This record gives sequence, C-alpha cells and structure tokens, in this order.
Amino acid sequence: MLRLGIIGATGYVGAEIVRLIAPRDDIEISVVVSNSFAGRPFSEIYPSLRGIFDKTCESLDPETISDKADFFITALPHGVSATIIPRLIENGRKVIDHSGDFRFRDVKVYEEWYKVTHTAPELISRAVYGLPELYRDKIRDAGLVADPGCYPTCSILGIAPALAAGIVSSRNIVISAVSGVSGAGRKSELSYSFCETDENFKAYGVANHRHTPEIEQELSLICGEKVIVSFTPHLAPMKRGMLATICLDLSDASMTAEEARSVYLDYYKNEPFVRILPPGELPQTKAVVGSNYVDISVNVDKRTGKLIVNSALDNLGKGSASQAVQALNIMAGFDETKGLLTPGPYL
Amino acid sequence: MLRLGIIGATGYVGAEIVRLIAPRDDIEISVVVSNSFAGRPFSEIYPSLRGIFDKTCESLDPETISDKADFFITALPHGVSATIIPRLIENGRKVIDHSGDFRFRDVKVYEEWYKVTHTAPELISRAVYGLPELYRDKIRDAGLVADPGCYPTCSILGIAPALAAGIVSSRNIVISAVSGVSGAGRKSELSYSFCETDENFKAYGVANHRHTPEIEQELSLICGEKVIVSFTPHLAPMKRGMLATICLDLSDASMTAEEARSVYLDYYKNEPFVRILPPGELPQTKAVVGSNYVDISVNVDKRTGKLIVNSALDNLGKGSASQAVQALNIMAGFDETKGLLTPGPYL
Amino acid sequence: MLRLGIIGATGYVGAEIVRLIAPRDDIEISVVVSNSFAGRPFSEIYPSLRGIFDKTCESLDPETISDKADFFITALPHGVSATIIPRLIENGRKVIDHSGDFRFRDVKVYEEWYKVTHTAPELISRAVYGLPELYRDKIRDAGLVADPGCYPTCSILGIAPALAAGIVSSRNIVISAVSGVSGAGRKSELSYSFCETDENFKAYGVANHRHTPEIEQELSLICGEKVIVSFTPHLAPMKRGMLATICLDLSDASMTAEEARSVYLDYYKNEPFVRILPPGELPQTKAVVGSNYVDISVNVDKRTGKLIVNSALDNLGKGSASQAVQALNIMAGFDETKGLLTPGPYL
Amino acid sequence: MLRLGIIGATGYVGAEIVRLIAPRDDIEISVVVSNSFAGRPFSEIYPSLRGIFDKTCESLDPETISDKADFFITALPHGVSATIIPRLIENGRKVIDHSGDFRFRDVKVYEEWYKVTHTAPELISRAVYGLPELYRDKIRDAGLVADPGCYPTCSILGIAPALAAGIVSSRNIVISAVSGVSGAGRKSELSYSFCETDENFKAYGVANHRHTPEIEQELSLICGEKVIVSFTPHLAPMKRGMLATICLDLSDASMTAEEARSVYLDYYKNEPFVRILPPGELPQTKAVVGSNYVDISVNVDKRTGKLIVNSALDNLGKGSASQAVQALNIMAGFDETKGLLTPGPYL
Repeated sequence: MLRLGIIGATGYVGAEIVRLIAPRDDIEISVVVSNSFAGRPFSEIYPSLRGIFDKTCESLDPETISDKADFFITALPHGVSATIIPRLIENGRKVIDHSGDFRFRDVKVYEEWYKVTHTAPELISRAVYGLPELYRDKIRDAGLVADPGCYPTCSILGIAPALAAGIVSSRNIVISAVSGVSGAGRKSELSYSFCETDENFKAYGVANHRHTPEIEQELSLICGEKVIVSFTPHLAPMKRGMLATICLDLSDASMTAEEARSVYLDYYKNEPFVRILPPGELPQTKAVVGSNYVDISVNVDKRTGKLIVNSALDNLGKGSASQAVQALNIMAGFDETKGLLTPGPYL
Repeated sequence: MLRLGIIGATGYVGAEIVRLIAPRDDIEISVVVSNSFAGRPFSEIYPSLRGIFDKTCESLDPETISDKADFFITALPHGVSATIIPRLIENGRKVIDHSGDFRFRDVKVYEEWYKVTHTAPELISRAVYGLPELYRDKIRDAGLVADPGCYPTCSILGIAPALAAGIVSSRNIVISAVSGVSGAGRKSELSYSFCETDENFKAYGVANHRHTPEIEQELSLICGEKVIVSFTPHLAPMKRGMLATICLDLSDASMTAEEARSVYLDYYKNEPFVRILPPGELPQTKAVVGSNYVDISVNVDKRTGKLIVNSALDNLGKGSASQAVQALNIMAGFDETKGLLTPGPYL
Repeated sequence: MLRLGIIGATGYVGAEIVRLIAPRDDIEISVVVSNSFAGRPFSEIYPSLRGIFDKTCESLDPETISDKADFFITALPHGVSATIIPRLIENGRKVIDHSGDFRFRDVKVYEEWYKVTHTAPELISRAVYGLPELYRDKIRDAGLVADPGCYPTCSILGIAPALAAGIVSSRNIVISAVSGVSGAGRKSELSYSFCETDENFKAYGVANHRHTPEIEQELSLICGEKVIVSFTPHLAPMKRGMLATICLDLSDASMTAEEARSVYLDYYKNEPFVRILPPGELPQTKAVVGSNYVDISVNVDKRTGKLIVNSALDNLGKGSASQAVQALNIMAGFDETKGLLTPGPYL
Repeated sequence: MLRLGIIGATGYVGAEIVRLIAPRDDIEISVVVSNSFAGRPFSEIYPSLRGIFDKTCESLDPETISDKADFFITALPHGVSATIIPRLIENGRKVIDHSGDFRFRDVKVYEEWYKVTHTAPELISRAVYGLPELYRDKIRDAGLVADPGCYPTCSILGIAPALAAGIVSSRNIVISAVSGVSGAGRKSELSYSFCETDENFKAYGVANHRHTPEIEQELSLICGEKVIVSFTPHLAPMKRGMLATICLDLSDASMTAEEARSVYLDYYKNEPFVRILPPGELPQTKAVVGSNYVDISVNVDKRTGKLIVNSALDNLGKGSASQAVQALNIMAGFDETKGLLTPGPYL
C-alpha cells in the first residue's frame, strides 16, 4: 500500500485530496500536516469526514514527516513550498507540489511575477509540469511534479489543440475566465465573506494575474513561438467551478466549427478526462464540479473570423486536487483513472 | 452481477441513484426508464455523466421493463407507483419504491392525506418501511420496500432514541424542519425558479404536510401510543440538505444533556451512518450533503425542561437516494455500507 | 434640518441607515464615526454610495463628536455602547442605541446573559424599548431608545396579539427562527466566509441565545406573567431576511384560523408596517427584505390545538436599521413612515 | 400629475418600474397591464408591494388602455411590442418600449437577428435609442423611445469614450459579459430553476446573441465605420447584475492607464449616473444593483497593448427599468435624476 503524506492538508485543495483518497484501498494517507490545526483531528475541521478520516494533524517538520510517507502532495503557499520540498526530495520522497514554485522553467519569470527570490532554483530543471495531457510520460518518471494552476489548466487545455494544429494565430489570444470562490483558498478575509461575495460578480487581477505567465509558457512551448495572452480572471458567487471563454484568431477564416471541432476530438482522442462536447452544447460548471473532467466546446464566429472555445472544470478538481491525484496515479504506476471516474454531484 | 432498473430515473432522486451506482462493479444499471426522455441518452439530461453513464432512457412499459432487471427502484409520483409496482412484483422482481404509496400501514391514513384512492392496497401488508435503523431485518427479506420520506427520516431518527427510552413525553412534539430546493423535485414551476427562490426563506405546508402522518406512524409504533406531532417544513435557498430542530418535553426535567446524549449513543451504537455529535457541536447540512450520513446533536434547555435535538441529512442522500441504495445493499446481501462510505464534497 | 450622527457607521446596520437617510432632505447625516475606517470616505467602504454619500469617517471621540449632531444612532458592540452613550446624553443629545445594553429593564438579566458588568446602569430606567407597535408614545418623548433585536422584533410582533388577547397560553411557547448571514455583522471570520456558509443550513445558540431574555421580557410585560420561551435560531445561506415559526398552545382548541387572524388584524389595525397576510398566504423573506415591513400569517393546527404564526422581516430593516429610523421619525416629530414606505427590491 | 401606464407590468422589468415609480408623488401609475394576471392585484404577484401598490392588472386592449395614461412603458416580448405600440402612438401617447423592436435603424438587421418580420417599420425612423448619455436631446423630444438592451448599455458605455476619442481601434473588439438570471425574465423554464442554475456558470448564445448587432450599430455610429464585435454572454448564479470585460486594441501602445482614464472622465464629466472608478478600483455588481448607476474601470495591459475596460450595471436598473425611468424623466421634463439617486442595497 502506497503511503501518502499531505502537507498543507487543511486547505480546500488538501481536504479535497483527502476526500478522493480516503475511500481507496491502494493508498493510505499516512500523515496529514497542518501547522494551524496540529494536534486536532482532521474531521474536526471537516466534519463531513467524521468517522471516515479522523487522523490527527501534525506540525510541519520536514525531517520528522519525511519518514512517514513515500509520496507527498504539498498544498502550501508559494515560497513556502520551495523551502520544504528540497528536504523531502533529498530523503528520497516523491513530491507533487501545488504551489507556483516549480511550474516555471525560467526562474526569472517566476521571480518577476511572484515577487520573491526562489530558494531552491536547483530543483527547477528536475520538476515536471503536471498536466498529463501534455506531459504524461515525463510525469511517470518524475520525482517532483508541479501541479498546474486552475486557470492555466482550463486555458491551456482549451487552446492547445488549435495552436498545435496551427489553425489559429499565436497572437491576439484573449482569455476571459471565471472562478468559484474556493479558488481563493480557505480564507477568513472580509472580501470573501458570504455577505460581501454572494450575489456579486467582479473582475480582479486585471492585466497582472500570476497565472498569465504560466499559460504563456506552455502555449509558447506548444507552438514554438513566444506567446503573450490577454487574461482576465473573474470571481462568481459560487463555491467551485471554473469556465474560460477563449477568443482565438482563425488562420483560415473559412474554417467551419465542425472542422475545428474535429481537430480537438483528434487531439484528445485518448484522453480519459477531456470531453469535447457535441455541436450545440456548451460547457457548464455544474457538469464538472466534483470531478476530474474538463468539458470543452468549439465554435466559430464567422463574422469576426474567431474561434470561440469554452472550457469548464472544477478548480478543486482538474484544476488542483484531482489533477494531483491523476499525477499520483501515473507516478505510482496505478491506473491513471483510479478513483477519478466518479461523476460529480451535478446538484 | 445484480441487474438494477431505475424507473423515473431522470428526476433528481433517480439521477443521484445513478451517480451512486454507476461506479460500482457489483451492480449493473441495466435499464433506466423515463417517459419524458425516452430515446435520449441519460447523459444528455445529466451532462455530468457524459462518458460515464450514457445508456438510453426507455419508456415506462412494465411488461417489457420487468424482464430487464432483478431489482427495481421506482422514483415515481405517488399514485403512479401503485399502478406500476404490482406487475413488477407479480413478475418476481424486488422493488424499492420512493413514493408515499407503500409507506403507510393504514390505507385510510394514506388516502386521507394524499387525497387519492390506493389502487394496490393488497400490497401494503407486504411492504416494509425502508429505514434500516428500525427495520433492518425485515428489509433483508422484503420483496417491496417503501423508501422513507426525507422529513420522516430526519425526524424519526432524531426522536426515536428518546421516545424508545421513555426520556421524553410522547405529547407536545414540535418539529421545525428545513429542506433544500431539490426536495421539490426536478420542476419547471415559477415558484422554484432561481430568481424566485434564491435569497428567500419561507415556511410551507403549515399544518398539512404529507410527511406528518408518516412521522406519526413510526413514532407511535416506537412508543406504543398514538403520537401527534406539530410539523412545519421550510424551504431554504440551497440545492440540497435538510435540518430538523425538534423540541421534546423531558420526562425528568433534571436530566442532563450528557445523560440524554448517552441514550442516543447507545441506541445507535452499531449504526454505520448515524453520527451523534460531541457536546458543543451542532449539525450542519454541508457535513452530510452528498453522503448517506445523518448528524444528530442532543441538547437540554434547562429553563424550559425541553430536549432540543437537531438532525441533519441530505434530502437526496439519506433522505432518499442513498437510503434506497442502503436498502438495496441489505436486500441483495451486499455489505450494507457498500458504495456509501464516501464523504460528501463539503464545499 | 435635523443633524444625525451615526456611530459604528461602517457595519451593516450603520450602512443601511446611511442608505435610508442619505436621499432625505429633512435629515443631514452630519457625522459618521468608525474607528476602523477613520479618515476614509464612507463610499470607499460601501462603493454603492460613491457620489451619493462620500463623507469621511471620523474616530470615536464622544466629546468631539457630540457637538456635531442633534441625534445619534449608535451601532456598537454591547458593552461599548454603555461607555459612550452617557456622555452623549449628558451633552443633551438624543440617542437610539442598537446594542443590547439598554434593552433590559433588569440589569441582572442583562449581565447574566451578556456576561459583562453594565457600566451605565443609571440610564436603564430612562431607556425606552424601541418597538413602536408597543411603545410609540414613550418613544416620542424618550432621550434614549434601545433599538430592539431582530429576533425579538420578529418574535414579539408575532406573539403579542395572541398573548394580549389571551387566546394562547403563556406557557410552552416554541420559537424556531432563521436569519440571513448579515445578522452576524460585517465580519471576516472563517465561519462566515462564502465557501463555509453558502449552501449550508445550521442551528446555533441552542438554548442560550441572548435574544431569548429580550423576547421573554416583553412577552411577560404583555401578559403580566413570567414567560419562558424555547427559542432556537438558525443560519440560512442568504444575506438578509428573517423568519420565525412560532408554535403556541391555543386556550380554546376549537378556535378557527379566521378567528385568530381577526385578533391579529384588530391588534395591528393602525400599524403602517405590519401586514397580516390573507388566509392561504405565508410570509417569505423576499417580500420584506429591503423594507421596514413585517409580514405575519396566522394558522391553526386543529390536530395539535396549536396556533402556528409565521412572521418575516428584514434583519437589517425592521429588525434593526429601518426600525431605528422609524423611532427617529417618531422622536423627531416627523411622519413616522417618512422614507420607509419604499418597497424592497423583491429580487 | 403625469399618468403612466405599464404594459407587460408583471415581468421583472415592469415590476422594477413599479417599485421605482410607486413612491413618487409626481407620477401616478394609472394602469398596469398583464394578460397573464388580469383581474388580480399587482401585489398578489409581487407581495413586497402589498399595501404599497395594490392596483388590479388589466388585459392588454390597446384601445381601452390608451386613454388611461399619458405615457406608456411597454415591457413586452419583441414582435408583440410592434403590434401594440402603433395604436398608442396614433392616440397621441408617448411610449418607451423595452423590446428590441425599435432599437434598430435598419429593419433588415432586426429581421435577420430576431427572425421575424417587423410589423410597424414605419415607426422605426421616429424611434430614438434611449441611451441618455448618447441621445439625451433627442429623447427629450421623442414620441417613441427604444429602451436599450442591458448588454448593449453595459458595452456601449464602456467603449464609447475610447472609440469616440480614437484611442482604440474599431477592429478586434472583444466583449465578454456576464448577467444575473433575471436577465432571462420571469420564466418557469427548467433551465432557470434554482437547482439547475444555482452554483453554476455557463456561456450561452455564443456568436449569435441578439444584442450583438445592437452594440455594433451604436459603436459604428460613434466612430463612423462599420464595427463588428466578438460578443460572448454568460450566466452567473445571481439574481441581478451585469459586468462586461472589454478588450480593445490601443491605437498608441504607449498610452498609460491614466491617460486613457482621463478620456473617460472627460467624456462622462456631466453624466449623473456614470462613475469612472479611481485607479486600482474595479467595478463589482453589488455596487450598482438596485440603482441606475454604471461603474467603469479603465486599465492598460502594457504587455498586449490592450485597453481593458470593465463596466458594471444592474440589468434591471440601468440595463432596463431605471434607464426607462431616466428616459421618462427626460421626456416629461422632470429632473433627469428624479427618484434615481437612491443607492442600491449593497447587500
């Protein structure tokens, strides 16, 4: 039985990983780490888990912790991850990190957007970007996987097929995306209080959100040119779910939606978690929330010559927790879909 | 492999049963029946199931249908169930019915509250009330199980221990309960539209809700006296979840909360899905939604001499769909908890 | 023009008072006090008021402040009010206080439930409980009015007519009430964050909520006997609104709903803000949110001999802010309904 | 006193107009027309208005109706308006129509997008597009005003200053906009039911929404060139509110946000309802819901050379009902801001 440790376990991403792994009989969550709740049972913080997962939270001491598991998933703030993970790696543990610390190939890009100095740059070259649809083989052999951001997963999966096939320009990519509130984490800030958030919609991080360079890095690698995107995130009054509306300039303005859609179907033909919707259907977050699926629609706006792609996923699912579990399945040699084919609750 | 048919499958209860059963390898959903959507794939109505459960819906023809499964779960309107189930029973099928048709021992009570004439009264004596905590052994051998209502499940489980132990009076029982909107079913009525329902709270069915006599029947059987309850249901602006606040007159006003709580702990000591909360904790719907659990707190109001019980469950879980699956597990000889120990999503 | 000062202005009650008063031409909000936001324009905290009410918040220095207005509404935490108000009163200002500090006639009851020592007990006898339906004439001449709590307003108005007319017993009163989240104030606690609150329903303060003795005080005064109530508050996933479901034992079990309803109609026949609903209608929070109205329905449960009263109001309206404005209108000699006949937004 | 008739009064736009006008003493709502609810008091459909506006709804008979008011606001489905309004105009009434019927200068554009034949094309040239910020003087003298669509109001006001000043290209305009559910009207369709809508986010009308040509018409008139826009609407789980995120190509990529913002400040310097937010602030729907304000932020994305404009309004406010009242104020010679400077409720 694989022993899994979760560090930063009491945040929403950590708790979702617990929810996904707790019922499995091939993985044991052998240690859950949370400085804020050390000494308290996990189910006291998440009462939905009472009687299901009552393990006591431990403090974050890398030395003590690293013996307690074979694999670790770290859900820590950026900057903190880079101080903890080196010790785990040295001790021979495999790590999936959910922060931004190991997502960037160019440390300067990271340092510019995150406004910190990277404390473990030597690990960057060993890290694999944990998007199985692009890097499945590398994930299999990786010792350190950087779990992608939610907006990047949603955006990259929506753009990759068109860019790879050259049916759209690599310039003038406009992404407008929306997240549920859990994307901000388990926070007690006033601006995320119910009264301030409910029934409210807003944009944020206009022209400066940190997921922008992450999207650009991967798109640039796909098409071999430096890609700059216009990315605007928004906050919608819902707990979970993410949807991106992507406007791309068609290379050939006479391309039909069916032709474009077949490019996507082909690109993802072996992917278990990407669903290209039939013509006339559009993605909606409730069809993917609670699951590892991403739903994508492909439409052509003949009047403007644009390809309009909509992609939806769960920011706590394919956008973070379940994608980490997918990577874990790959790294550990399990069936990649193990424990992940369960549908979300719809309601 | 057990073959299960779901009749009335495209309602919310039916869809939740599909969600729970689809990932299992010991049960095959061999037929899904929906007159409204006959000929259309199930995943077209519930896109969360796309690629997971795409079976085509069939029309409701009992003769054709009954050969296609060994067990049936019927999620039909009351009155309709009673016209369909006799044929299934005759053909040797086992049935779990989610309507009110077979929940009452006294057909007159049913007819008075439901304002219809029962068309299959001969089956009533063979039906077992499907609350495993009260009738586990009878369910095991039953050919027809009446899946309890959501309010009755929530109320009866909250009152049974106190009444059975005689620590409260059987008179002056006051139940105030709240349901999420899915309790009304998958409906296109204006009063359940988003704009009319969101951010709104109201009572309904004051002094005349049909779940009242169902609660009274079971409580009367527990204490051996005719019990009359005051029951007021309410609608809260949320999709799923139910919470009951129950005021009971303590027989001995000096009883402490700890003493009362120990009565509950003892009563449910072998129950896998009933969680008696520790002192100081109160149930909340988000801890049970998406699961088969019911959370119960027991408090004493010394000033009024009342026992205050709060019980929470998921109206689409322990209040209907997953409770039906629990009964199915029992009837089919599976482990009763099979597929039901998965925690709900919390968020 | 009357000069009004609002102390504790940036909480939700204060902001609602600003919203109600800002458009009026007979009252000038001459000073807004908020220690947390001193020096910042009010509309920076509440951007809905940008261009409408941009006055800068001031610090809470009673001496400086008291010259700046004729009337003050204080929306401060309990305990704090009692330390500030004496100076305002000494300086000849009239005060409407929204804390619990001056609602109780018996200081011991206050101190027992609020767990503090009252620092200005000498003012208690001069304070008038600010429920116009009960104390209109006393409010008119008062120098210090205690704005009632939201649950007490909702409960007392729902019970007063029946108790005053003697058609129900003063014993065995059971109140189950539900509030929107704004009732907790403008708070950055995790338990009121969107993700923890949305789609969740729970009870809280079981058998120990501080509004209990306030309800009991006023009901006791109405019927001339010591009244003890069972009161259970709940939190619903909505911003505003409150609904109480009240179970009362009918003195004469043969009384009809129509007879009971006529008692209520008669009791409130001259009240501009109490609406007794027609038979068959039940109150809902969306009909009162954003307004000073309270909607009440009266039903009889013949089976249990109980009178079931439902009353709904806006916890930020008749439950606090607009009720304070109603008292201000009375104290200042304005038409009592001035600025308060505007309907809420319904949606 | 001006007599106002509202036709199609029981929809959400009509009800909001009633809410805005009912408290005024310079306008009497002399007749409310609703075929669905003829003979029933308006406050039965909208119980928030009980005791405030109880007038009985009348059937839609243009001949009978037209005598009963001086001005009419029609909130009817497109196509229906064009059959009713001619008679009102003939009888000398002034009309503000909220359908799409009279918004287009070119009847062919209307007929192509709305898929109907216009039955009163002769009135088109007499209709004025009711956006006061663009057509205040024409509205003053108009007999027929076409109340603009919500998305067009939000988009045009967000783009007009930049396009008029020539600081952005008229090509490659990308608008991603989000509406609350009330934008769909008062509907009992399943897809707008609470359970299907709550906690869900989706795009709709991709590349074919009818508000597209309305936006294009007005932008083309502003810049004197034919403008084609990419417009994608979305539905967010909230009752009211609209936000547009607009990406425009800067003519001069070195322009700063401050320079662009000053263009907007100048353009709207005399507008009472347009608020250009200070640098660093972004609009949010809760700041405008319930009001006639539109909040606009102007940012520059230096990396892409784009101007990012965010504009927010209330789809039932400046996007429909209160904008109609603004037009009415202008047409009737009242102060344009009469009854419209009230802030929204924020919560």
